[in-house]
Amino acid sequence: MTPDPIGVAVIGAGMVGRAHANAYRCAAGVYAADTPPPRLVAIADVYEPFAADAARRYGFRRAETDWRAVVDAPDVHAISIAVANDLHREITVAALAAGKHVLCEKPLAPTVADAEAMVAAARAAPGQVGAVGFTFRRSPAIAAIARQVGAGPLGPVRHIVGNYWCDYGHDPQRPMSWRYRGGPGSGVLADIGSHMVDLAEWLCGPTRRVGGTTMTTVVTRRPKPLGVAVGHAGGVALSNEREPVDNEDICTFTTGYADGAVGTFALSRIAYGHANSLRLDVFCERGTVSFDLTRPAEFTIADDAPDDDVNGIRTVFVGPAHPYVHGGLPMDFPTVGHGQNDFFVFQARAFLDQIAGTGDLPPCPDLAHGLHNLRVLAAITAARQDAAAATGSPVATTT
Amino acid sequence: MTPDPIGVAVIGAGMVGRAHANAYRCAAGVYAADTPPPRLVAIADVYEPFAADAARRYGFRRAETDWRAVVDAPDVHAISIAVANDLHREITVAALAAGKHVLCEKPLAPTVADAEAMVAAARAAPGQVGAVGFTFRRSPAIAAIARQVGAGPLGPVRHIVGNYWCDYGHDPQRPMSWRYRGGPGSGVLADIGSHMVDLAEWLCGPTRRVGGTTMTTVVTRRPKPLGVAVGHAGGVALSNEREPVDNEDICTFTTGYADGAVGTFALSRIAYGHANSLRLDVFCERGTVSFDLTRPAEFTIADDAPDDDVNGIRTVFVGPAHPYVHGGLPMDFPTVGHGQNDFFVFQARAFLDQIAGTGDLPPCPDLAHGLHNLRVLAAITAARQDAAAATGSPVATTT
Amino acid sequence: MTPDPIGVAVIGAGMVGRAHANAYRCAAGVYAADTPPPRLVAIADVYEPFAADAARRYGFRRAETDWRAVVDAPDVHAISIAVANDLHREITVAALAAGKHVLCEKPLAPTVADAEAMVAAARAAPGQVGAVGFTFRRSPAIAAIARQVGAGPLGPVRHIVGNYWCDYGHDPQRPMSWRYRGGPGSGVLADIGSHMVDLAEWLCGPTRRVGGTTMTTVVTRRPKPLGVAVGHAGGVALSNEREPVDNEDICTFTTGYADGAVGTFALSRIAYGHANSLRLDVFCERGTVSFDLTRPAEFTIADDAPDDDVNGIRTVFVGPAHPYVHGGLPMDFPTVGHGQNDFFVFQARAFLDQIAGTGDLPPCPDLAHGLHNLRVLAAITAARQDAAAATGSPVATTT
Amino acid sequence: MTPDPIGVAVIGAGMVGRAHANAYRCAAGVYAADTPPPRLVAIADVYEPFAADAARRYGFRRAETDWRAVVDAPDVHAISIAVANDLHREITVAALAAGKHVLCEKPLAPTVADAEAMVAAARAAPGQVGAVGFTFRRSPAIAAIARQVGAGPLGPVRHIVGNYWCDYGHDPQRPMSWRYRGGPGSGVLADIGSHMVDLAEWLCGPTRRVGGTTMTTVVTRRPKPLGVAVGHAGGVALSNEREPVDNEDICTFTTGYADGAVGTFALSRIAYGHANSLRLDVFCERGTVSFDLTRPAEFTIADDAPDDDVNGIRTVFVGPAHPYVHGGLPMDFPTVGHGQNDFFVFQARAFLDQIAGTGDLPPCPDLAHGLHNLRVLAAITAARQDAAAATGSPVATTT
Repeated sequence: MTPDPIGVAVIGAGMVGRAHANAYRCAAGVYAADTPPPRLVAIADVYEPFAADAARRYGFRRAETDWRAVVDAPDVHAISIAVANDLHREITVAALAAGKHVLCEKPLAPTVADAEAMVAAARAAPGQVGAVGFTFRRSPAIAAIARQVGAGPLGPVRHIVGNYWCDYGHDPQRPMSWRYRGGPGSGVLADIGSHMVDLAEWLCGPTRRVGGTTMTTVVTRRPKPLGVAVGHAGGVALSNEREPVDNEDICTFTTGYADGAVGTFALSRIAYGHANSLRLDVFCERGTVSFDLTRPAEFTIADDAPDDDVNGIRTVFVGPAHPYVHGGLPMDFPTVGHGQNDFFVFQARAFLDQIAGTGDLPPCPDLAHGLHNLRVLAAITAARQDAAAATGSPVATTT
Repeated sequence: MTPDPIGVAVIGAGMVGRAHANAYRCAAGVYAADTPPPRLVAIADVYEPFAADAARRYGFRRAETDWRAVVDAPDVHAISIAVANDLHREITVAALAAGKHVLCEKPLAPTVADAEAMVAAARAAPGQVGAVGFTFRRSPAIAAIARQVGAGPLGPVRHIVGNYWCDYGHDPQRPMSWRYRGGPGSGVLADIGSHMVDLAEWLCGPTRRVGGTTMTTVVTRRPKPLGVAVGHAGGVALSNEREPVDNEDICTFTTGYADGAVGTFALSRIAYGHANSLRLDVFCERGTVSFDLTRPAEFTIADDAPDDDVNGIRTVFVGPAHPYVHGGLPMDFPTVGHGQNDFFVFQARAFLDQIAGTGDLPPCPDLAHGLHNLRVLAAITAARQDAAAATGSPVATTT
Repeated sequence: MTPDPIGVAVIGAGMVGRAHANAYRCAAGVYAADTPPPRLVAIADVYEPFAADAARRYGFRRAETDWRAVVDAPDVHAISIAVANDLHREITVAALAAGKHVLCEKPLAPTVADAEAMVAAARAAPGQVGAVGFTFRRSPAIAAIARQVGAGPLGPVRHIVGNYWCDYGHDPQRPMSWRYRGGPGSGVLADIGSHMVDLAEWLCGPTRRVGGTTMTTVVTRRPKPLGVAVGHAGGVALSNEREPVDNEDICTFTTGYADGAVGTFALSRIAYGHANSLRLDVFCERGTVSFDLTRPAEFTIADDAPDDDVNGIRTVFVGPAHPYVHGGLPMDFPTVGHGQNDFFVFQARAFLDQIAGTGDLPPCPDLAHGLHNLRVLAAITAARQDAAAATGSPVATTT
Repeated sequence: MTPDPIGVAVIGAGMVGRAHANAYRCAAGVYAADTPPPRLVAIADVYEPFAADAARRYGFRRAETDWRAVVDAPDVHAISIAVANDLHREITVAALAAGKHVLCEKPLAPTVADAEAMVAAARAAPGQVGAVGFTFRRSPAIAAIARQVGAGPLGPVRHIVGNYWCDYGHDPQRPMSWRYRGGPGSGVLADIGSHMVDLAEWLCGPTRRVGGTTMTTVVTRRPKPLGVAVGHAGGVALSNEREPVDNEDICTFTTGYADGAVGTFALSRIAYGHANSLRLDVFCERGTVSFDLTRPAEFTIADDAPDDDVNGIRTVFVGPAHPYVHGGLPMDFPTVGHGQNDFFVFQARAFLDQIAGTGDLPPCPDLAHGLHNLRVLAAITAARQDAAAATGSPVATTT
């Protein structure tokens, strides 16, 4: 039976955890007004000041420092998990076992094996929602693009070019963190590439082939932090000691999809000047659509309308005619603008609706979807071409 | 004594009223976490379904259909007024007399005389906040621009070019509403020009001279609506009957400021393709800054750094280094994005802080400021040049 | 009888003169291949090295230092005049009297009286072409826009917003020149505003009313140059002595047109970061078109095609479907790009075609057109509002 | 001994041939004014009307229909070859044997073996220039970027993302031509990818590894033309008969460079809405530079100047401070604009200077460079991953 109201909690009060906390606070205001508002119960972080600040700020009743206190709490029914990847499995499995609904951040886990265990736990709890947070599916503009391609008016995708460029790792003085630990594929590929792989499959169908994977680590050692950092932001005192970075700063690869589309992907966490540039260019049978996260509330489309000397690439500002905006923003005319934090609100609303059986938003991808995503990431990593690999084609071109 | 918690209400549950309601709901989450969250008490609209929907959606305890019920309610301490302009005076004066803090939408009133009465009422209630909602002052990018000009690194403004182009009136089938009633100056000048005049004075100082005002009404008659429309959105059944539009669709004028800057302004509510394009180009002694509301989270700046072959116009995405963003958005890195609804949240926080004596945000402009704005609008209207006016310079150029 | 080949000359070998010289050299290659190529006869400049360099560079047979040598030469049939404005009258009148075809740069002359004398001279030489160089009419994108508005698919113009921002005068160390001499209206209004006034009339019809003119001079004194400068470029030694600037750095005004359109104009020669930004936004009955010279080979258009969730502002790259490009550029596909120098080539071709009676390009505007333009500039200047003027509306808004 | 003047000829009078013809006509006007202007001798095309039109248009003395007439002409000293790739070898070898200087279009030849023969012919004629036309190296903006990276202020490249998207093949009704014939790699990879591979090596150094190559052909059959088409433009009558397309519409691959940079490349000739979009994003140690051919006269740069709240991505309009512009355009201020046709002029000037031993432009890449380029293309083709290839990594992700 759906609890009423749903008691929600967030584990992790870093930058992403705050986005989840805010999302629950705002979720009641969006879409179907008769959806029961959740009760904001608890937010947890090992660093108590973060938990306390987020709890006060977003109106949660309790701040906790141990995630188990959240998982065990009888007044908590649904939990967002926004902590380091290597904790996802333990918390998710425990939460599901405790009867909670779970929305776990991406990538689902450090390894396929971990994710398999999580999926198994979800299967053992069939009445509970086990979801993974592919938040960009809640972007109104990307969702509008998804309507255009494939079965939409532009027809099947022929080629997708996906670039995701961040600069959080550009400065070698940014402190060591869990994001820089793990083997190949656990770096920029897992962190932001997981989103890109998911979006590409949304638009193109299942990945059938990957190749040409090249990974490089440019900043090979980073200073140990002497305190706790939130997000990527630094601002923390640094040790003179440096620790090795285990995973990739840059990753590029190509893909093939079941329906014949091909993909080109470039990922970087050291892209100076690009705080968070997710770009999609999607070439279809009857036109082209593009998206750039730096202008989150718009997309461009080129097709044959009108097919004459005023044909061009149209910049479309999303509004009530597009997904999520009507009822999702108080003022909702085109160009009113929104940001990534709003994506989390729409996602929270969808997650709560799934639990309550209300609403008509697309459900959150389930844990098996998150596992599938990890398997594609693993295949990309396995297709790696480096000095030691046999798959790269050396180019000898001296004349 | 500041009530704790502050009981808030919104009068008007149209598009702008909803933005206020959402803003109070979210205001507790932004900035100083120890600021007491407000109690969301009541939202009123003559059209009951609007009031009820907004109350449920944003978590207000009561929906009312008579604004007097709000003004009279002892558990309401602060009121946002977001209704047709010709009701501003009556409600504001009553609310102030009832001991409430007031945040009234712009333009403050239909006439200077109305606004003078409101200012008088505010002077008679010195312990209460009487504020006007110039929301664009809460734009992080515009506030960042304000830091650059005048006393900032770019120095005094030489020239400001302000364009505010909307398309809400472009379609002649959009129904008649209060926005299309009133004499010259009550149309696009009052509706969106009031914002532009305010922003220009923020950046350039007091207006000293206006001239060349030209106003035209292109859509001279509009169909009577048969129901209630929210915002500009139409979607309402229309009568076959048409009513005359009283005020201007387009308004353009030039200005001079006390410190020598000059201004060029173009306003339109029939600008096809421009849902809400507010553009500022501000030319200063040592550089130029520009803003375009269609990309609300960025601005451009050109100055002499670096002064060589890589000098150019920089696109700056606002982030924690700029006003409002840090603590105002859960994820707050540059390019995370935000929209106009967020401006209302920042404004609500500032209004509540003023009442509570907390925080360090700039206070809301007071009612006298709103009166001043109306006086500038009146001067612009008085400088009108049309067929009947003596001030225009006819151009006879036949050879 | 049309001479064959037409002997052409250029008077003035500064930056604009070079553009004319290059244009004649290239004109044979564009459009109707059977148009006779001109003979490149002479180029004159008081500063001999400029004349000699341009003659060598663009393949003219003679370099002269006295314009009279050009006007008197029997092998010269057509002359471009690209010198300081105060020489336009004398040279044009002499050239027409000597039986030459004349293409004179804009603005036609320093005063209306001068221009009237030039028009009279042209009337006395009815078999010769007397033309004025409104080069932006040869922009493929602007010409494409002209096809859309008025009688075109977008219908009559309602509002035109014209901004022309340069930075050639921003640096107070740039030397004094003829551009900074003359009374009000001879500064930025004459120099670049003349283009804007012309383009606006092309799109909107005759100017009927001007108002609100505000002119300011920010850089009031400039250093005397110790040598000869080409274009705006400086690079010349400067005296310690400074001379007063006589005319305006900034000019803004509003207009009304015969058919009801209104105009808003902002001109500046001290606009940091804008080397040469000519922007037009043209709002019509059925859509909006815009142009920005910094991207010279494109324009944007918004209309109702397609009228649904993919409607937006289209960026159109000019190509063979648009004016001038097909046959005007060797490779001529959309996005191949071109620049302002190409406008001069197209203009030269049109001027030569007029002389030869060939081709189907629009003819160059005649001298009477240039006179009309000056009369509008004079009316704009007369509508000036400053401390001494009675027409400005002072704004007294103290509460 | 350098002939004076140099007699020049162009073989091929299609769109690219015309660009070469125009370039020779204009080359005398750019840069060192004392460089001897060439004599425009002959232009050849098997389709006589093309040859005749181009000869008349650009002022060449003779139109020929047999390339041998050009190669054998004693008054021709330098030849541009702009015909179908499979003729490059024969003409180049013959021209070199006849003592001519040769500028051959890219890609140098259909096969590495062909190109080796051409290089051998060039080695046998050491006193003659044998060059390949990588025209984009003459882009002022790309050349400006090249100054910034590597040994420039931004330091070594870490990652290059190269997209080259055209739409000339999008319409299945466009006629069959030589561009659609040849095996894998002879399609979009050879046609436009050759440019991209060359630019990437210019910025990053020699390619050391390629991988992940995926090629697809979307339009598999095209109608036979019934006449002669120029460029990609169609406009020719079509047969009902269709012929198979032999080569790829889309090609994507990744690269590694000797100095550690990695590359991501996406090429398409069926990219709706992109007439000719060549985009480069170059991520370096100390900043990022980007270029987009649709705005050919600008580039963007992000670095740490100034490193504070006004840091951003700068849009730099090329001008006299950048390569090629000063002396290369008559009016040469920033934002004056230019297009791809100008690149050919700069290239022609460089080629003539090489022959004459004048000037200081970078020389044209030689035939060995063109051979190297082909070898990289061959390696990319060899790294192909398709249904039949063993190198692709299949992704099996079913749960």
